[in-house]
Amino acid sequence: MAEHLSQSELDYPFKLLEYFNGFRVSKIIFSACELGVFDLLLKSQDALSAQHVAHELGTSVDGMERLLDALVGIEILEVEKAEGTALYSSTDVANLYLAKGSAKSLHDMIIYRSQTVYPLWNNLADAIREGRNQYEKTFGLPSAHFFQAIYRSEEEMLKFMGIMSCHWVLDGHDVVTAFDLSRFQKVVDLGGEDPPPVHSHHLLRCCTGALANEMARAYPASSVTVFDLPEVVEAAQKHFKQDSGVTFQSGDFFSGEIPGADLYVLARVIHDWPEEKCLELLKKIYETCKPGGGVLLVEALLFENRRGPIMAQIFSLNMLVQTQGRERTPSEYTHMLNKSGFRNVLVCRTGKSYDAILAVR
Amino acid sequence: MAEHLSQSELDYPFKLLEYFNGFRVSKIIFSACELGVFDLLLKSQDALSAQHVAHELGTSVDGMERLLDALVGIEILEVEKAEGTALYSSTDVANLYLAKGSAKSLHDMIIYRSQTVYPLWNNLADAIREGRNQYEKTFGLPSAHFFQAIYRSEEEMLKFMGIMSCHWVLDGHDVVTAFDLSRFQKVVDLGGEDPPPVHSHHLLRCCTGALANEMARAYPASSVTVFDLPEVVEAAQKHFKQDSGVTFQSGDFFSGEIPGADLYVLARVIHDWPEEKCLELLKKIYETCKPGGGVLLVEALLFENRRGPIMAQIFSLNMLVQTQGRERTPSEYTHMLNKSGFRNVLVCRTGKSYDAILAVR
Repeated sequence: MAEHLSQSELDYPFKLLEYFNGFRVSKIIFSACELGVFDLLLKSQDALSAQHVAHELGTSVDGMERLLDALVGIEILEVEKAEGTALYSSTDVANLYLAKGSAKSLHDMIIYRSQTVYPLWNNLADAIREGRNQYEKTFGLPSAHFFQAIYRSEEEMLKFMGIMSCHWVLDGHDVVTAFDLSRFQKVVDLGGEDPPPVHSHHLLRCCTGALANEMARAYPASSVTVFDLPEVVEAAQKHFKQDSGVTFQSGDFFSGEIPGADLYVLARVIHDWPEEKCLELLKKIYETCKPGGGVLLVEALLFENRRGPIMAQIFSLNMLVQTQGRERTPSEYTHMLNKSGFRNVLVCRTGKSYDAILAVR
Repeated sequence: MAEHLSQSELDYPFKLLEYFNGFRVSKIIFSACELGVFDLLLKSQDALSAQHVAHELGTSVDGMERLLDALVGIEILEVEKAEGTALYSSTDVANLYLAKGSAKSLHDMIIYRSQTVYPLWNNLADAIREGRNQYEKTFGLPSAHFFQAIYRSEEEMLKFMGIMSCHWVLDGHDVVTAFDLSRFQKVVDLGGEDPPPVHSHHLLRCCTGALANEMARAYPASSVTVFDLPEVVEAAQKHFKQDSGVTFQSGDFFSGEIPGADLYVLARVIHDWPEEKCLELLKKIYETCKPGGGVLLVEALLFENRRGPIMAQIFSLNMLVQTQGRERTPSEYTHMLNKSGFRNVLVCRTGKSYDAILAVR
């Protein structure tokens, strides 16, 4: 992400000014998603005027025109003039990632970032001062209540599950093929647990089976099971397309038994928790795991020298603002895995947002 | 700002993900400013550990460490390991632009962006829906009250004036030398007016004389006067360093008389207002202006083809969120200037954030 802040920045800080405007660029895209701009342009056969878009989406013409122009400025839309009227049309990138319908749509993740993460990050300075998440200050309620609120409404829960599967739309294939996992016959993707008070974050992972689907596609000879909380399993089976033979099993990996397997997948689970809690979970998996079996951690890995990647560093601050967890370096994961009994820790950086670590018993 | 969103974005949307994280990168820098990180590192002779910085600034060590690492990731800080401890130090860019003391400090502008603009932009979608600014929704009070609140406290007003002078630290010299203005003997920089209800925005310009100082330095044979509201003039004279012979005169350019001059400067004034109000002001200036005299508009100019510059497009959305104004194209400014009587409109793009337009009577 970072271009080098060279000597020329001293003469005029173009890059710094770009960083200062980062929040405005994010909100330009987020707001266009919220207002339905990309969906309308995808559906429409023709390029549309600002007036037409504003009328269809129930917004002011003036505001919509400025928004569309800024989206052209960041090359997410295109504009042509016809008889003096500016006509806007979508790009392939917007159709693929920003419109609602597409198989690779990031729409749900964007709405979540805009409405939940953006306001939470307004309190980043306080999160750093206090060393804890900012749900209560931001939304006026403790995070346990926040997640309980999500749970009570199936609609809210589904929205949340949709968000979380977005990550595997992008990185799923890379992380499941980071290692040849074909020797593992029975694979269990461990999700969900009872939300403990104050900092529950368990829905912030892949609970729709999206990663498990990628796994089943990559290793058709293996059986893949998603182990998650009963309500999550029920909703995933009911509402999300499971097209690759993935099965579901209800349970709670902190308080209950874990099913036997050759390979356990923990995708964005470890990063939610402080070290003691991670060790408790990894030891439990180690004890259930057959000899020769293993565990696959999917996380955004920090560099050992602390200098990046910027995406993982940003995620680690996000864990501070939203959870009790953090991102870690390969050596920190290796240390925890060894302490839990696992050996032969292999690390694979994918070059995308999420990386993979494999360890065996 | 925009790199081309090429075909490769379709395979993996690195640039989109960067845009989605823009708000987090902004807040990483803003929070470090708010917490005093750059000031402490500038003062310190040695590189400091996260623990040391956290202790000095009264923050959690864990949170500070993540923040410092992310600042290294975007190359605003540097880190070295010494005996196993990470030691952080500042860069020239951070010392020059982000620390408080420097002559080129953008510190006040950053605090304003973090605490006022960032929350306002959380309501961008509503601003576009409603076509109006979001002070009331964001801060629970109409914008007139917001500005009146600033006025009541000298401390608040000074903070605000400090912010506004930041822009001319960067672009001041370029805009005053965009044209050879040496033929204009008497220059008047028109600032401030009584805040009209709901949308007053007049303090959002150069009210500390920073641009006037640049003008006086560039044209030492000319006399330069800042014409602004009495309370602003008083505060500017009392608190901001005026080192270049600039004089101050109190008044209100909407409700009162304008002093005679060869050149009138309107820097970021026109963009605050709807067209009728702009025409009213420009006609008044035209009538007071001597033949051969002129007006210099300093604004961020949009391209005629609507495709940029992205900075001006972002500012125009910002005007929607914060004022009743907008950014405009050269032809829109030319149209207004001609309608007010001015001729020979010259446009100069500086390549930075703010551009210049000169017109003569």
